[in-house]
Amino acid sequence: MKQIDGGITAVPGVQAAGIHAGIKKAETKDLALIVTDVPATAAGVFTKNSVTAAPVIVCRKHLSNPTAQAIVINSGNANACTGERGMINAHLMATVTAEQLSIAEEDVLVSSTGVIGQQLPMDKIENGIQLATKALNTNGGADAAEAIMTTDTHPKSAAVEIEIGGKTVKIGGIAKGSGMIAPNMATMLSYLTTDVCINSETLQTALTHVVDNTYNLLTVDTDRSTNDTVIILATGSAGNAEIVSSNSQDYDEFCEGLQFVCTELVKMLARDGEGATKLVEVVIKRAKNRVDAEKAARAVAESPLVKTAVFANDANWGRIMMAIGKSGAEFDPYQVDVLLGDYLLVKNGMDSGYDEDKATQLFDNDPVRITIDLRAGDVEVTMWTCDYSYDYIRINADYRT
Amino acid sequence: MKQIDGGITAVPGVQAAGIHAGIKKAETKDLALIVTDVPATAAGVFTKNSVTAAPVIVCRKHLSNPTAQAIVINSGNANACTGERGMINAHLMATVTAEQLSIAEEDVLVSSTGVIGQQLPMDKIENGIQLATKALNTNGGADAAEAIMTTDTHPKSAAVEIEIGGKTVKIGGIAKGSGMIAPNMATMLSYLTTDVCINSETLQTALTHVVDNTYNLLTVDTDRSTNDTVIILATGSAGNAEIVSSNSQDYDEFCEGLQFVCTELVKMLARDGEGATKLVEVVIKRAKNRVDAEKAARAVAESPLVKTAVFANDANWGRIMMAIGKSGAEFDPYQVDVLLGDYLLVKNGMDSGYDEDKATQLFDNDPVRITIDLRAGDVEVTMWTCDYSYDYIRINADYRT
Repeated sequence: MKQIDGGITAVPGVQAAGIHAGIKKAETKDLALIVTDVPATAAGVFTKNSVTAAPVIVCRKHLSNPTAQAIVINSGNANACTGERGMINAHLMATVTAEQLSIAEEDVLVSSTGVIGQQLPMDKIENGIQLATKALNTNGGADAAEAIMTTDTHPKSAAVEIEIGGKTVKIGGIAKGSGMIAPNMATMLSYLTTDVCINSETLQTALTHVVDNTYNLLTVDTDRSTNDTVIILATGSAGNAEIVSSNSQDYDEFCEGLQFVCTELVKMLARDGEGATKLVEVVIKRAKNRVDAEKAARAVAESPLVKTAVFANDANWGRIMMAIGKSGAEFDPYQVDVLLGDYLLVKNGMDSGYDEDKATQLFDNDPVRITIDLRAGDVEVTMWTCDYSYDYIRINADYRT
Repeated sequence: MKQIDGGITAVPGVQAAGIHAGIKKAETKDLALIVTDVPATAAGVFTKNSVTAAPVIVCRKHLSNPTAQAIVINSGNANACTGERGMINAHLMATVTAEQLSIAEEDVLVSSTGVIGQQLPMDKIENGIQLATKALNTNGGADAAEAIMTTDTHPKSAAVEIEIGGKTVKIGGIAKGSGMIAPNMATMLSYLTTDVCINSETLQTALTHVVDNTYNLLTVDTDRSTNDTVIILATGSAGNAEIVSSNSQDYDEFCEGLQFVCTELVKMLARDGEGATKLVEVVIKRAKNRVDAEKAARAVAESPLVKTAVFANDANWGRIMMAIGKSGAEFDPYQVDVLLGDYLLVKNGMDSGYDEDKATQLFDNDPVRITIDLRAGDVEVTMWTCDYSYDYIRINADYRT
């Protein structure tokens, strides 16, 4: 596996663009378009929030036939809580894009991110789609990554080259999201492209599997959005024998590459969490089962008290014990070890006699890794988050004003 | 029902004290003692955190016989994650108190609150218990309320006088806690006294019922402590006919008084949440059932995005819709109304066309009340919380240093 440049447009047969349509007041890019040269096999994973934004409903509908050739995304307006008119507008985004590209409307997927409860400025959106179509190019991945940002401080993009059955396969991805990020697909958009040849069912299996181990283990503020979306388009042009089963070495190799790209993106998302000063990895070891492992990891990663302690470089392990204790995971408190990096803070549920100054220095590590050994089984899970700083409050108190 | 002064010592036959034992470095009170003239009927509700502090284990043991005559409480050190030695020290606090008061050790209940993972300074504790015993008096409620504080900015105390079967009954209470407060008995201590005559089983039923409707509907930061405790002592001296069943008018009247005292304390706790600038009441109306009502209320009350919007006086109702959507409660998004105070922000899941300036002014109300009408059933629940400000981060980033 080799990391390569170019993000989504590192994959042959993929063009992208990101332009300023005027949805945001600032002179920044706010509309992205991703297009494949041929209809691609497509799969998606969407928000579990029961207040679902209109574009998510359109995506689910269009993916009932699992091919797609374009994704159009606007930032600045979420098109959520917008009723009938919101649904019409989401469909209209697909229609206009399909017309511009001379493809079927059902092959266009739609995303929106930004403020909830306002109707889309459709004149600007339509004009923007025309501009984006003209701007499409095989180096446009970076522009697209920029155009989907909201409170993100920088664009997020990753790509790898792997080998499957002797053929070179590329996988690229972009993502956005730094607030309202939490379990189960929170305010987070990510678009992945690949030239692997794979059938739609296996592609969906791979995507769901990888999302469960990456995006769904990312948490910034426990809130989850109405718009979350991960979509993958597979053009099939790599020349590998079609992957038709999740019980195959080719599948495993593809998943490994996809997992790598998504993990890179997830780390970028956590590191860019609103107000974040540190990327934090919470590793639960020897949990009784996967459910317990996730519960314990989430309780630590989402605890405001733990997150403020990390911000303050304070090895306040009592808060970590408190967090796993409230998680509902099964373990014996007096069997638990807690490590900061490789340094033991807690031995058998009590103070290890560690040196406070040395512990403080370990918060300079990137990432800050908190490992909790529950000694209750053999399941391990890693979750990603960030610390909680003054800037989290500033960003979220000022977002609309 | 009449509100009266005096807190826990408003009740005849109750003495209290709060003194500086030296557990905290600052010259502030850090040890409280509450004593009844006669052995009282006692009931308690404790943390559900599986990492349970030693004093909680001692309380549970001593309440297997539901009488008690004294409660000793220290602040500055939680005696949690302290192993065997912590257990011995918690027992020793009871033993020393029993000796000083010449009562049975089993009739002494023990609480600790403060930093996790350090052993209690037992010389200071023992000396403090002697000092507190000498300081006991019938006006000591205020001192006790002060001595149990940690990051609280002021002591919390309330009392009422009610009538049961023609007899005057008094109920008093104190509480502490402003961080690590969340569902299911988080870092929160509360002690209640009353002279009502009631049997132990009915007292426990009343306490559990009222705790479910007050303390367990309070949330500051989703974290819950290893030490949470609510204890009530009933001396029985009021002269009312003993309350022996929860199916009686006398029981209902007692519960009403107890609910009032606890609600007052809970509002004080929320208003004094770490960094709080506003008391927030989240009212869910017409939920399908109690579970859904609590889920929806908790999702809103615990959402960092909602809480930072309240801090910023921003009627960002999209975040409220997002929060109820992720809660798992059943409802139709396009049937939901949201009100700020009595002002309609959201009608049928969409912008009501409200005036933004007028909405901003409503954040000056105390409390800030957010009402969400789900139109899915007939259950209502009120939850209390506070906003999230810069000071929440400051307080929690600085707590140990």
